[in-house]
Amino acid sequence: MEIPYVIGIDMGGTNTAFGIVDRRGDIIFRSSISTVGYTRGEDYVEDLGNAINDLITYNNLAGLIKGIGMGVPNGNMNDGTIEKAANIPWAKTVVVPLAAMITQKTGLPCGLTNDANAAAMGEMAYGVAKGIKDFIVITLGTGLGSGIVSNGHLIIGHDGFAGELGHIRVVRENGRLCGCGRTGCLETYASATGVARTAREILELHPDKKSILREITLSPITSKDVFEAAKSGDEVALEIFNFTGRILGEAISDFIAFTSPKAIILFGGLANAGNFLTAPLKKAMNDHVLSIYQGKTEILVSALNDAEAAILGASALAWES
Amino acid sequence: MEIPYVIGIDMGGTNTAFGIVDRRGDIIFRSSISTVGYTRGEDYVEDLGNAINDLITYNNLAGLIKGIGMGVPNGNMNDGTIEKAANIPWAKTVVVPLAAMITQKTGLPCGLTNDANAAAMGEMAYGVAKGIKDFIVITLGTGLGSGIVSNGHLIIGHDGFAGELGHIRVVRENGRLCGCGRTGCLETYASATGVARTAREILELHPDKKSILREITLSPITSKDVFEAAKSGDEVALEIFNFTGRILGEAISDFIAFTSPKAIILFGGLANAGNFLTAPLKKAMNDHVLSIYQGKTEILVSALNDAEAAILGASALAWES
Repeated sequence: MEIPYVIGIDMGGTNTAFGIVDRRGDIIFRSSISTVGYTRGEDYVEDLGNAINDLITYNNLAGLIKGIGMGVPNGNMNDGTIEKAANIPWAKTVVVPLAAMITQKTGLPCGLTNDANAAAMGEMAYGVAKGIKDFIVITLGTGLGSGIVSNGHLIIGHDGFAGELGHIRVVRENGRLCGCGRTGCLETYASATGVARTAREILELHPDKKSILREITLSPITSKDVFEAAKSGDEVALEIFNFTGRILGEAISDFIAFTSPKAIILFGGLANAGNFLTAPLKKAMNDHVLSIYQGKTEILVSALNDAEAAILGASALAWES
Repeated sequence: MEIPYVIGIDMGGTNTAFGIVDRRGDIIFRSSISTVGYTRGEDYVEDLGNAINDLITYNNLAGLIKGIGMGVPNGNMNDGTIEKAANIPWAKTVVVPLAAMITQKTGLPCGLTNDANAAAMGEMAYGVAKGIKDFIVITLGTGLGSGIVSNGHLIIGHDGFAGELGHIRVVRENGRLCGCGRTGCLETYASATGVARTAREILELHPDKKSILREITLSPITSKDVFEAAKSGDEVALEIFNFTGRILGEAISDFIAFTSPKAIILFGGLANAGNFLTAPLKKAMNDHVLSIYQGKTEILVSALNDAEAAILGASALAWES
């Protein structure tokens, strides 16, 4: 009998959510524990493992779980470790063999990778990349993450850390300062924070331009604010999306020359802006892509539920185990 | 019994050279036919197939050949076709199923790919990439070609045309015009013709700078000229390599964020400049690479004989068949 279920774990800085997932991508049971408050990886795994074992036992699913997949900040898919994770105290300075520890505690095979790679696996197993063997998922959140799939396999690189397309340098002169310490990285432009920076720049540079975004003064401008403003026809908001789409589209024209993907899949808050973002993006991509690739690569927006995508993506790893 | 030999075919615009290759990468017999003078692919394959069959028969190797690999301009590895090959009259406007035609004529399985992908396969089978599963070969000839290997497999993309890193745009404002019709492509800087353009630019921009390269007036400056001048301490020649190495090194720092390769392998005339090119290249790469990749990727120069590499690379495809 084919084992019908897998478990997906989404380990965030605050919360660790997990669920039991079937082959169609439905999360049939779910639970969570806090990620904070642990100083040792062993204690975290003890509590997480107990919570997982409880969820399985309580629902009478012992023996029906194929394996566990985890989406983990700075997760190394090659060896199942977590390292240099800035927001996880017990994995900040040491390399922790997290997957092996979970397996020891639960008796189930466990694989892990970073969030963006998990998103790519999720799209392939349950989402818009079903049946597509060459694609790139770009996650547009606070930063820009990416998962690259070539011929049906994630590209993970010799060290497990391939696919940091947010840190491709798209502006080489006077580029924006990035959290990584370098300048001009794609994620300083194409991400939620990038959009907020663009908004501030345009508003400050053109004090004459009218915009409802000027009314947002107490908190940073979000990509949702810009989306709402764009919907009401606000010209500055449209300019922000045009600029963001153009930078991302030009970068994608370079990405295509790398792996020649059939599709680029956008995921995350900013992707919800739909045509406001994808129209200028597609134009820039088509204007700049090498002629042999012209018209071959689709821009798709993820259809996975934002709240479920991280668990689903992580769970997709376990089908491969 | 393991079949001991393969055939590699290097199809150039002028000449088609081929050889029978053993597992160590020694070309034990070789021959060639002209590539020019054919208006129909059928006629070319007829003559090439006969020449191959003759070489096999003459050397009593019937039954000892595992297969044939071809390096072909605009070769599509996915389906074994050649298309839009500017210098091949019979494959300029139509898609020709070249691999299948060779198989029909010789009775041997045949695979094909472009030159740079063949170079990557050759490095993995016989060269400095032996035992390395994640690397990028960059061929520095008239243009810049690339073959990307991830987890031991060539990345060929959904259409068979992945890996055109020569057309990654490294200068987005006022970049050099490229043969592809776009501007700022990497190969307009890092290639033999790129070096010649850089030489001319520096000499024209600084009429005061002394250089033995000024004495080359009747023909374009070659990368060998610049190499010879650099060896004699010519400052303009050193400046040319510094500029070229810096542009290529910065580009490589972005490539690393894509597939996280263990090695970048340089091949072709310009790569023979050794440290003059690789020293500024490594500095730029290290200065610009994301910290998680720092110090992990080696820059290697191909050790394959220039005259044999194309046949060897093509032949490597056949071991996989």
